[in-house]
Amino acid sequence: MNVLIVYAHPQPQSLNGAIRDFAVQRLEAAGHRVQVSDLYAMQWKTTIDEQDAPERDPSEPFHASLDSKQAFESGAQRADIAREQEKLRWADALILQFPLWWFSMPAIMKGWIDRVYAYGFAYGVGEHSDTHWGDRYGEGSMAGKRAMLIVTTGGWDSHYSARGINGPIDDVLFPIQHGMLFYPGFDILPPYVAFRTGRVDAERFAQIERELGERLDTLATTPPIPYRRQNHGAYEIPALTLKDDIATGQTGYAAHIG
Amino acid sequence: MNVLIVYAHPQPQSLNGAIRDFAVQRLEAAGHRVQVSDLYAMQWKTTIDEQDAPERDPSEPFHASLDSKQAFESGAQRADIAREQEKLRWADALILQFPLWWFSMPAIMKGWIDRVYAYGFAYGVGEHSDTHWGDRYGEGSMAGKRAMLIVTTGGWDSHYSARGINGPIDDVLFPIQHGMLFYPGFDILPPYVAFRTGRVDAERFAQIERELGERLDTLATTPPIPYRRQNHGAYEIPALTLKDDIATGQTGYAAHIG
Repeated sequence: MNVLIVYAHPQPQSLNGAIRDFAVQRLEAAGHRVQVSDLYAMQWKTTIDEQDAPERDPSEPFHASLDSKQAFESGAQRADIAREQEKLRWADALILQFPLWWFSMPAIMKGWIDRVYAYGFAYGVGEHSDTHWGDRYGEGSMAGKRAMLIVTTGGWDSHYSARGINGPIDDVLFPIQHGMLFYPGFDILPPYVAFRTGRVDAERFAQIERELGERLDTLATTPPIPYRRQNHGAYEIPALTLKDDIATGQTGYAAHIG
Repeated sequence: MNVLIVYAHPQPQSLNGAIRDFAVQRLEAAGHRVQVSDLYAMQWKTTIDEQDAPERDPSEPFHASLDSKQAFESGAQRADIAREQEKLRWADALILQFPLWWFSMPAIMKGWIDRVYAYGFAYGVGEHSDTHWGDRYGEGSMAGKRAMLIVTTGGWDSHYSARGINGPIDDVLFPIQHGMLFYPGFDILPPYVAFRTGRVDAERFAQIERELGERLDTLATTPPIPYRRQNHGAYEIPALTLKDDIATGQTGYAAHIG
C-alpha cells in the first residue's frame, strides 16, 4: 500500500519522533511505500487566509470556503496545498500522528485540515439537494482509502474511560475520526492511543512497538469502525437525523456506529 | 464586568464580523469594558515552538510543556503570549467567538489555546499527587471567571441534534467547553450557536441580535453548566473516574454534568 503519515510534533528527539521512525521502518519493511508530511519540519503554514487563493479578486471580501472552491477548481491553489492533496490521492492509507493537546490535535495539524480540505476536494462533493446531501460520511473523494490515528497523551487510560473525567477517548476522537476523516470518505480503523506518556522507559517503549507494530502489520485488513453511511438509508434527508427504526432510543455519538 | 472576546475569523465583512461588532457595542452600552483579541488582525503566531521560550538552553531538545513552564515561571515568555495571559487575568468573562470548522475551532484559535495556556498558568496548577490531581476542572487560575462560546455553523440545528449525523452540538463542543475552559477553572455558560449561516438575511440577523443580545445582557447572571468539579468528591483519585454512586450506570460526557 501507499501510506501517508501526517505528523505533528515539534521535536524529533521525542517519544513521538521515535514512534514515527518506528512506524516508517515497520511499514517499509513490510513492502509499503511511505511518505511523511512532517508539519513542523515543513514549517507548514497553519492559518487559512487570502494568500491561499492567489488569483482571487482582491476587491471582493475573502470567503474561506468559496475562495478555496474557486482556487481548487481553477488549479490556482498555493503549491503547498496542492502537494498535500496529491499525496492524499496517492495514498491508500492515511495515518495522522499527534500528541493530544487540549483534547484535540495541535494547531499546526488543524491547519493542515483547514487548508488542504478545500471545497470540492473534501467537502461540497457530489449532488447537494434536499434528497442527497452531498457525497460525504462514507462517500466522497477519499472513498476506498483507510485512515487511522496514532495519538499520545499524558493522561491515564482511566481518565479517558467510559466514566473518566476527560470523557471516553472514542468520544474525544469522534470529531476527528468521524468528522474529519469519515466525512470525506475514509474508512476509519480503531485508533492506536498511548496513554501516560510522561514516563516511557525502555520496557514501555518495547510494549508500544509490539502493540503498534501489530496494528501496522494489519493496516490493510483490520475491520474499520462501522460508522453509518449518510446515503444508505439510515438517515432522514435533509434533516440528517437517524430514522426512528435505527438505533431506536439511542442518542449521541455511539448511535452513529452500526 | 471586564470582558475579553477572542475572535477568529479572516474577514471583517462577514457574518462573524457583524456579530463581533454587535457584541462589543451591546456589552459596552451596558457599561462593561471590552477588549477584543482579533487573532487574524493580530497575525497571531499559531504554532507553539522553541521561539516561544526565548531563553531556553538550545543544546537541549525542545519540550513544549516543560519549556513553557520554565518560560512562564521565569518571566521569559514571548510578549504576545504574556499579553494574552494579562488580558485573561484582567477579564471577568471570556468569550470565544469562531466559525465551527471541521467540528472544532479554526487552527489560529487552537494555536491561541496551545500557546497562551502555559504550564503553570492553565495546567500544572496546584498540588499534583495521588490524592490531589491538580487544581483543575472547576479550580485553577481562571476560577471565578465566566466563559461562553459564540459559534456559527453552516449546518442545520437538526444535523447537530441528539440523533443528528454530526453529533449533538453539546458533545461537539464538550472538548472546548469542558476540556479547554472548565479545566483551568472557568464557569461555562451555555453556548450561543447560530446554525444555517449560509443564508442570513436581514430578518435572520435581527433574530440573532435579539437572541445573542439577551445572552449578553445576562452574561453575569446566567447559571453555568453544572459540570462536576474534580476535587469535590465525585471522582476517585487518581483514577479520575466517577464514583459508583454518582450518575450510576451513566457513561460519556453527560455523566459529568450534575
